[in-house]
Amino acid sequence: MEIKDFKTIEPVRFDNEVAKGIAGRVLIGKADGAPNFCMRLFEIAPGGHTPRHTHDWEHEMFYHSGQGEVYGNGQWNPVGPGSAVFVKPGEEHQVRNTGTEPLMLLCLVPSGAPEL
Amino acid sequence: MEIKDFKTIEPVRFDNEVAKGIAGRVLIGKADGAPNFCMRLFEIAPGGHTPRHTHDWEHEMFYHSGQGEVYGNGQWNPVGPGSAVFVKPGEEHQVRNTGTEPLMLLCLVPSGAPEL
Repeated sequence: MEIKDFKTIEPVRFDNEVAKGIAGRVLIGKADGAPNFCMRLFEIAPGGHTPRHTHDWEHEMFYHSGQGEVYGNGQWNPVGPGSAVFVKPGEEHQVRNTGTEPLMLLCLVPSGAPEL
Repeated sequence: MEIKDFKTIEPVRFDNEVAKGIAGRVLIGKADGAPNFCMRLFEIAPGGHTPRHTHDWEHEMFYHSGQGEVYGNGQWNPVGPGSAVFVKPGEEHQVRNTGTEPLMLLCLVPSGAPEL
């Protein structure tokens, strides 16, 4: 068993026009021997956003803290603590922080997808 | 894309000597078309606990709120908001709420394992 506080993991930062104000952490992945799927935590700064994109694998997201919106089904949708979002393979999606605190969300992907 | 607030999902309750004070919800699973893994949220009441058991599949857990302990590696270990726990296939494990608020944790399993 491995037990980690996310804050002990050094984040990888993305900060450009496509991915703005993002800190990403792999909480559980290949390096831990995870056989089937990978747990990542993303911290999006106020005003920040992920890329708008599509890919062949799914996302299973859970929103831990902060306030934001997820783009999907052709519109922006509000999300906050306790929201679960399933992005099916091939669906266009994007996440942005619309609040004043960091937006923290888990985003899990199957093994074989890029971990970060 | 599917977006749900966990509170809109009716929980399945477990309350006996083996699994005490547990409310389980499948947030994203087979019924949603999830192809590779299943996201469940467990709410453990103060004084409650999950079974101590082992099985052939892994868990990837993330602790959302409340205070508790997870049994693993032969001892009880403290967990709280922001803790990530990887339970490898075959590892004995158990979770208990040691606080005064509900202990809320995500616990993901690969497709093929029981969803609840």
